[in-house]
This record gives sequence, C-alpha cells and structure tokens, in this order.
Amino acid sequence: MFETLFKPQSIAVVGASRNPGKIGYTILMNLKMTGFNGKIFPVNRNESEILGLKCYPSLSDIGEKVDIAVLALPVKYIPELVSECKDIGTGYVIIISGGFSETGGAGKEMEEQLARIIYGSGTRIIGPNTVGVYFPYNRVNTALTPPDRVLFPPEGKIAFISQSGALGLLAMDSISEYGVGISAFINLGNMIDLNDLELLDYFGKDEKTGSVVVYIESVSSGKLFFEKIREINRIKPVVVLKSGRTQSSAMAASLHTGAMATNDAILNGALLQAGATRAYDETELLDYGRVLAYSKPLRGKNIAVVTTAGGIGVITSDYISSKHHGIGLSLARLKESTKDAIKKIIVPFGSAENPIDLTADGSTSDYKKILPILLDDPGVDGIIIYALPQTPKMDVSIVDVIQEYANGIKPLVVGVIGSKMGRDIIIELERRKIPAFPSIQRTVKAVKVLYDYGTYMKRRL
Amino acid sequence: MFETLFKPQSIAVVGASRNPGKIGYTILMNLKMTGFNGKIFPVNRNESEILGLKCYPSLSDIGEKVDIAVLALPVKYIPELVSECKDIGTGYVIIISGGFSETGGAGKEMEEQLARIIYGSGTRIIGPNTVGVYFPYNRVNTALTPPDRVLFPPEGKIAFISQSGALGLLAMDSISEYGVGISAFINLGNMIDLNDLELLDYFGKDEKTGSVVVYIESVSSGKLFFEKIREINRIKPVVVLKSGRTQSSAMAASLHTGAMATNDAILNGALLQAGATRAYDETELLDYGRVLAYSKPLRGKNIAVVTTAGGIGVITSDYISSKHHGIGLSLARLKESTKDAIKKIIVPFGSAENPIDLTADGSTSDYKKILPILLDDPGVDGIIIYALPQTPKMDVSIVDVIQEYANGIKPLVVGVIGSKMGRDIIIELERRKIPAFPSIQRTVKAVKVLYDYGTYMKRRL
Repeated sequence: MFETLFKPQSIAVVGASRNPGKIGYTILMNLKMTGFNGKIFPVNRNESEILGLKCYPSLSDIGEKVDIAVLALPVKYIPELVSECKDIGTGYVIIISGGFSETGGAGKEMEEQLARIIYGSGTRIIGPNTVGVYFPYNRVNTALTPPDRVLFPPEGKIAFISQSGALGLLAMDSISEYGVGISAFINLGNMIDLNDLELLDYFGKDEKTGSVVVYIESVSSGKLFFEKIREINRIKPVVVLKSGRTQSSAMAASLHTGAMATNDAILNGALLQAGATRAYDETELLDYGRVLAYSKPLRGKNIAVVTTAGGIGVITSDYISSKHHGIGLSLARLKESTKDAIKKIIVPFGSAENPIDLTADGSTSDYKKILPILLDDPGVDGIIIYALPQTPKMDVSIVDVIQEYANGIKPLVVGVIGSKMGRDIIIELERRKIPAFPSIQRTVKAVKVLYDYGTYMKRRL
Repeated sequence: MFETLFKPQSIAVVGASRNPGKIGYTILMNLKMTGFNGKIFPVNRNESEILGLKCYPSLSDIGEKVDIAVLALPVKYIPELVSECKDIGTGYVIIISGGFSETGGAGKEMEEQLARIIYGSGTRIIGPNTVGVYFPYNRVNTALTPPDRVLFPPEGKIAFISQSGALGLLAMDSISEYGVGISAFINLGNMIDLNDLELLDYFGKDEKTGSVVVYIESVSSGKLFFEKIREINRIKPVVVLKSGRTQSSAMAASLHTGAMATNDAILNGALLQAGATRAYDETELLDYGRVLAYSKPLRGKNIAVVTTAGGIGVITSDYISSKHHGIGLSLARLKESTKDAIKKIIVPFGSAENPIDLTADGSTSDYKKILPILLDDPGVDGIIIYALPQTPKMDVSIVDVIQEYANGIKPLVVGVIGSKMGRDIIIELERRKIPAFPSIQRTVKAVKVLYDYGTYMKRRL
C-alpha cells in the first residue's frame, strides 16, 4: 500500500521553472537539495533544461513511468493535467495549486470534476491546496518553501499528517532546531481523494513510525475517523490538533481549507473515547508526538524530580501537583531507605526529598548513582531529570547516563533550560530518542501525556 | 541609591583561583569576559597573579577602595571576611557560599551573626547562597557559570530580581538565544540584608528599566511586599513568579532558600490587587516582562490577526476566543469598509475576515498596506502579526514595516514560527524592542497580559 508514494522511483514537476521566485523552481530545488535519488522530470513547454535536469514539454513527452506528478500551475490547467496523469498511469498527483473549494462554489465543482476524472483509475490525488509531502527516509521533498528559509527535520519516528501546509512546514522548521526527526510528513490540503483514514492505517503499520500526529481543521467522515483513531491508537499513540474550536475560528477554518465545523465538546469526547491525545497548538502537537514515540506510558502518577537548580525543582513540583496551572499528578513520596541512599551521594545542603536537589555541586556521576536508586523505589512511577548546563560538573556526557536507564518500564523525561550547552544536550538526547524539552512547562506537560496514555491503555485491557 | 552596586569602580574576588574548576576562577573570568572596566582585585593568599591580574593576600592588603567584594570561600571563613569588608569600607559584599539557613539552625544563626557584623555600617550584604549580579550596562558579572556553557543577555529593558541563582542564570541563557536583553539581574539568595523591596524601589525609578520581573520562593515581609509591588506597578509593570504553590513544593522551597510557605490563594489575591502580572514558570516570567516592557497595554479585548498561514490563524483564533485552553478575549469584528479595503490587497482565495489570511502569496508590502487599515478600524484594539518565513515574498524587512506601526496606542504583538529565518526575524524585532514570540501559545498569552495590565490601569484611574 502506498509503495509508489513513499518510495517513488520518479517524480515529475509540472510548472518547473528557472525563476527562483516561482514555486516550480523551489520544488525542484528542494527535491535536489534533499537528495532524492530517483529520476526527476521537470515539465515546462518553454525550457529544455532546468537546474541541470532535462526538461520535457509535457507529461506525455516524458515517455517513462511517473510515480509522482507535482502540479505547480494555476488552477485552470489542473483538470487537463490530471487527465494526462491518469492517461500515462501516474501513481500520485500532488496538486499544489490553491483556488478550489476554499474559495467557494466554483472551486468545489472543480474538485468534483477532478474526483470524476480519476474515478476507477489507479491514479490518486493529494490535495489540492497542498504543499505536498516530505519523506526524509526516501529523500522526497515537494515543499514550496525555499531551503534557505526553513529547516527540514531529519529521519525520525513521528508521522505528521497535516491538513494545512504552512503550519506543517513551520512546525517542522521549529522542531528541526533541536534535531527532532519525523518519519513522514503529508499535507492533505482539501483532501478530495487521499485522506487521513488511509494514512492513519498506513502509519499504524509503518515500522519507522512510533507515533502519529494529525493537524485537522475538519473531520473527513466523523464516525469513521474516530473509529480509525481508536483502532490505530491501540497500536501506537495518535495525537490530534483540531482547530476551529470556537464559532468564529471555525469560520476561519472553512475559509482556509473548506473545513466543516464540528462541535468541540463532541470532538473532545470522541477523542477521549478513542484514547487519542489532544494538542492545542503546534508545539504541543510535536512535543506530545515525540514523548509518546520515545517513551513507555506512565503506569502511575507519582513523579520524582532530580535537579541541580533548586528553583527549577520547586517550579516543576508546582506544575506536577497543581490542577490549576499544572497537571494534577503527584510528587513521588520516597522511601526512607531511598532518601538515605541519596543523602550519601549529595552535598549536605542538597535535598534528598523529592524534588531531589543536588545543587550546583551535582555531577554527572551523582546522576549515575541516583537514577537506579530512584527507579528501584516502588513509589516512583516516572522521573523528570533536569540536565542543566550551569552546573560545572555536568556536561553533555550526562546523555550517556540517562540513556543507560531510559528504556526501562518507568519513563524518564528530560528538561533542559538554556540555549548554549543546553541545546547541544537536547540534540544529543534527541539523537538517542530520549524525550527532552527546553522549558519546565513543556517537560511537565509531556509527562501528563504519558500518564493519560498509560491510563487509557490500562483501562482498555 | 545603590550607585556603588550598579556602577562599581572596583571589585574584589576573594577566593580567586587559577583552577578552572573553581568558582573563584569562573567569577574572575566572567568579570573579564563581560568587559568590566573598573579595577579587579583577585584575593588569594597563595598566588601573586591570576589571569594576568595582580593578586592580593587579603582584602586589607589591597589598600584601595573596594566597591564590591565577592566572597567565594567556604562558609566557615565568611564571618571574618565580612568583618574585614566592613573594616575597609566595602560597599557591597556578595556572598556566593551556600550552607546557611537553607541547611537549618546553625546556618540560620550564622546569618544572624553576619547581620550583626554589618549593623550600622555602610556595608551591605547580597546573599548568602547567591550567584550575585549581572549588569550588562556596566559590564558587571559575578556569575559562577562558565561563559562557554551559558549565554548572558545583552543590554535591555527587563530588570530581573531572583531569589534563585541557577533559575536566573538558566532563564537568562534561554532568552539570550533570541537576543532578548535585560537592564539588570540580581540574585538575592537567602536575602539576609539587601532585599526585594529596596530593589523594586530602585528599578521603579531606573530609566533603563521598562518592567521588573521577580522570582521568589518566599515573601520577605508580606504586607510591605505587596504594597511595594502595588506602588511600583503603577509606574512600570511588575511580573511575579512565586513558586512553592502547593504544600509539597513549598517544602522543597524551604529546603532551597529557607523560604517560608505562603497560602497561594492569598498570594494570588494580593498580586491581583496590586495589579501585578503572575507568571508560573521561567518562560512566562520573561515573556511577560518583555511584552510589558515594550508595549502599551491593551485598551479593549478585540484582537485582529494577520497571517500568511491559514492554519496558524485558525489556531490563534481558538486561543484568543476560548476560555478553556485560551485567553477568553475576542476576535475583532471588522467593519465592512475595512474588509473591502483588505480584499483589494489580498489574493482572491485569501481571507479578509479576521483572522486575515494573505496565504503564501502574502508579501511584506501587503502587510504595509493592511496594518494601517486595521489600526484605523475602531473595532480593533490590538493586532497579532505573524511574520512567517515560509512565505517567499516576505523576509526580514517585514521588521521595518512592523516597526512603523509599533509605537501607536494599539499594541502589535508578533508571532514567528520557525527556526532558521524565523530566528533572524525575532532577533531583529527584539533589537527594536518589538515583542515577538516563537510559538502561537506564547504570542497569545503575551496579548492576555497586555489586556490584564490595561484593565488594571483603567480601573485604578
């Protein structure tokens, strides 16, 4: 299923251009820069060569199999081009052009026309009104944003399905900063053919994918969508960001991707029942996808915190145990023997009470001794570890220590505050698929998501 | 007041060391690297020279005026050193050493002893258990974190008073990533002498300071503290992050800085009455401080949104208008004439309804035309502008357009999603003191803070 889409041998770009201001230039550039190693066919009636690639006057002139055709021409040319794609047996047509149902009735009719054209054929449509796809494992990138402006994430474990293209590209740019990777990105756009249900199915089985994150403005087919999420969420976690929660923003969504409004309370109930994790913005979407892809779920609500900065331990404790401005879980109560063992490791003015504060004297080797002690305490269900660069006796090698204990049944979530050495620590943790976040709030919220998913998994057993 | 502290002519570092593993080395290094251009006196009985500076066997041997003495020696030496500071007429003694009241009774007694020593003299104590101060305008930096690990922020408008040193250093490291500046940072530590009230007074009058942000674990003197905040908050906004909100975390705070628990509901009421903005973590503390330092308060609750990415507009609208996972303000309803004027500027499939979506076709010059139209609409109280790097026709020059309209009565808050060109845009906006945030949630929360401050200011008139 979808073999030709995810591992294409050839991609045609219709509307390819020499002009760096044109989308047809950028797509070609992105394909090259990302290192796609299949065949690339630029199509442009007026050029014989673009970016060193032979250019064809039309799709039919290529005379070879085209797995994916990217259409970057104005809307009026699209029906004829889609017909041509069908005729030459193109597997997937990515329609970049906007101007369809998001603009009203005439556009809606044109979408129906496109659906009729491909009906019964082997040709599938992605979009219209899409930036297309980005598959790092197979170096496929049809994004329309110049590579000198945004970063594309490396290979990773999050599958990202997005109804909105720009949101997807910008969210990917943001996470790339910390080296966070994805397994695939697909922008569904107006979703007249290829849809979220099929992709959920695919990623549910995809071995490279550890979690699926979905940004939607409309639910394609209510009941089926939630049933599918429920089914996939049992195999691997699904995170959903559904926007258009209020009346006014739902109207905005309908103007954006022609989305239909859904009652938000009903949606929330359906997601809850499906056990899906709900996100409310781009940061949450990918933070939650990441922690769920990397960590086992929490089996209880008792969290231990280890820090070398007391203030950060106190604020974290506030967030853990408060319901208001917090996640409403519990600070683990440590056994006396646990505290005694920790006291022997830390300086006298540190704290062996949870949150455990090693003070600025804390070292990588202290963490190495303390982590197994905490993991052994039956009162501890999971640990928030702060890896803070202000402590002279700690450096990036803390990552090795954390990795040693990261794959047990009790989740470890790492918080890193700071930008200089802090960034290096997060990037290195990310490389080893250990969830790490650059703020207290994001760290604690990630823990809540592991708890909710764990609770759901227990309930359904 | 505090002239010698903020603009010292000379600083002695007692416990200065040649050993890069020692705090006495790092402090000296930070002073040099930050470019302090007064006199620096290392004090160490066993050295004649450190880092190219003449070293003195004792404070008394310096034989010159010492404005600030930084004590980086174990706790047992501190009383004698403080006496010596008093005897030579040192203005401010920064006691880095921990091991005082945060460790229990004996430490508490020693603090009382120190207070007695300086009683009636002109010598003041900062700390103990402090990392000291960082004053970018006068290049004073007594931080104990090596400069190869963390960044220090440039000159800016936020005065940062922190009870916790590590939290302060790490939060400053984080904001430095985007070039966010501060006017001063002081870590009060156990606060046995120099206190938050005095500093609030000072920063209230300080011309370089546009807002004061305070991290505290305990309130020094209840009623007085809130009265002072109320007084200063009328002159310039005060943001307070008070941790130890729950019983368990309050205990952690007492172990950290010897803080006394405060009932959180009472605290919240007192802050509300004082009109202070409350933050719940390090990110909020400095985001709120920044937006309040740079922007006029909001005079109404109707927010317009301009974006080139529809999805980001929809999520923003959700956050603006929802009470649950949102700030509970309103999307501005635009006049028909406003919408008509915008329609003439944007592409046909864009949206002239709020949130205004220019689509990927949106350009810097579109923003230049649309901003004055929106600002003219009486239904608009403030604008969230997205400056998004995925749009080919927009680049860092968007900053010039935003700046043109940034100083009017209606606040502009900028959201930037992305890491590559996105970061450059934020840094450039920051340089011009225009509030910009790297996520939807942080952008919208900043708007809420401007609304609350505006509401408070109206009420007290």
